[in-house]
Amino acid sequence: MQLLKERILKDGTCLAGGIIRVDSFLNHQMDPALIHELGKEFARRFANESVTKVLTVEASGIAIAIMTGLELNVPVVFAKKAVSSNLGDDRFYSTTVHSFTKGVDCDLVVSKKYINENDKVLIIDDFLAMGEAASGLIRLVNQAGATLVGIGVAIEKAFQPGGSRLRERGLRVESLAIAELCEDGNIIFN
Amino acid sequence: MQLLKERILKDGTCLAGGIIRVDSFLNHQMDPALIHELGKEFARRFANESVTKVLTVEASGIAIAIMTGLELNVPVVFAKKAVSSNLGDDRFYSTTVHSFTKGVDCDLVVSKKYINENDKVLIIDDFLAMGEAASGLIRLVNQAGATLVGIGVAIEKAFQPGGSRLRERGLRVESLAIAELCEDGNIIFN
Repeated sequence: MQLLKERILKDGTCLAGGIIRVDSFLNHQMDPALIHELGKEFARRFANESVTKVLTVEASGIAIAIMTGLELNVPVVFAKKAVSSNLGDDRFYSTTVHSFTKGVDCDLVVSKKYINENDKVLIIDDFLAMGEAASGLIRLVNQAGATLVGIGVAIEKAFQPGGSRLRERGLRVESLAIAELCEDGNIIFN
Repeated sequence: MQLLKERILKDGTCLAGGIIRVDSFLNHQMDPALIHELGKEFARRFANESVTKVLTVEASGIAIAIMTGLELNVPVVFAKKAVSSNLGDDRFYSTTVHSFTKGVDCDLVVSKKYINENDKVLIIDDFLAMGEAASGLIRLVNQAGATLVGIGVAIEKAFQPGGSRLRERGLRVESLAIAELCEDGNIIFN
């Protein structure tokens, strides 16, 4: 998506360790008009999939997900992060994920009331890097017995294995900007 | 706002301790069309205030705030929650708040890059009860030397003191649904 790539090149920065910083418009300060366009683009790409629910994870996925849900006219559910504790609460689907950014494990939890076996779920997130968050959300979809339609992310880091691993599993991954490289302050898109 | 009150009466529940549960449409599963309407209503109420920035706090404020920012055509910043640690990192405004719901303290942090003394800030959140989150966000606005335009919340619990305390300080508080009572499963709006 040209609009997003141009914005990343203009306002994003590339830090040591392949970190793409976009906190001026995407995940701390947010540009609502841009994020609305991201939502429209995801809705366009998944228009024929009869999506019944958008699933994301707090916090930085929420804005993109709500715009996607607005355009698809379906509810949006965000998984909550809880300190890893094996809650064992049978009102929730839950799974443990590792955050490579923060170096900690946490649980993702979703109330069983809001996803069920009749749902066709579209997962939305801001970043796809190692694929930990996406894989955790997929496990929640599987626990619910729901159908996974695909995964839509704003920015994929192709130099980390998350996207390849998901595609190798036969899953549909739509990334609006795919960074092939982020080094020495330069970002190159494919 | 009649639309929101009717939705709360239809799909919300009132639990012991004055808890208004709206997680089927507002803060776990979210209805994007409804939340878009909330954003439009906040934009209407604050249309003449020359707002330059919407400020909220992760996670459940983000959806309402991004819709408000979309309608006002201004950036949205969400404060991040960090485990209370007196970070002392001078790149951030930070303040400690107490969560009465969770029984813990946490720090709210906002990068100094995204609010400054020229900003006219509208604070948006889903709930106003004890006023802890709103007061924390106000302290961040004050640290930045910015002007606070007002506070917009979807649901105010008038049986808890947050709203009164803010209004006593001369602040403009706009609540789209004000619950006067939440007892024995009944919610009464003013």
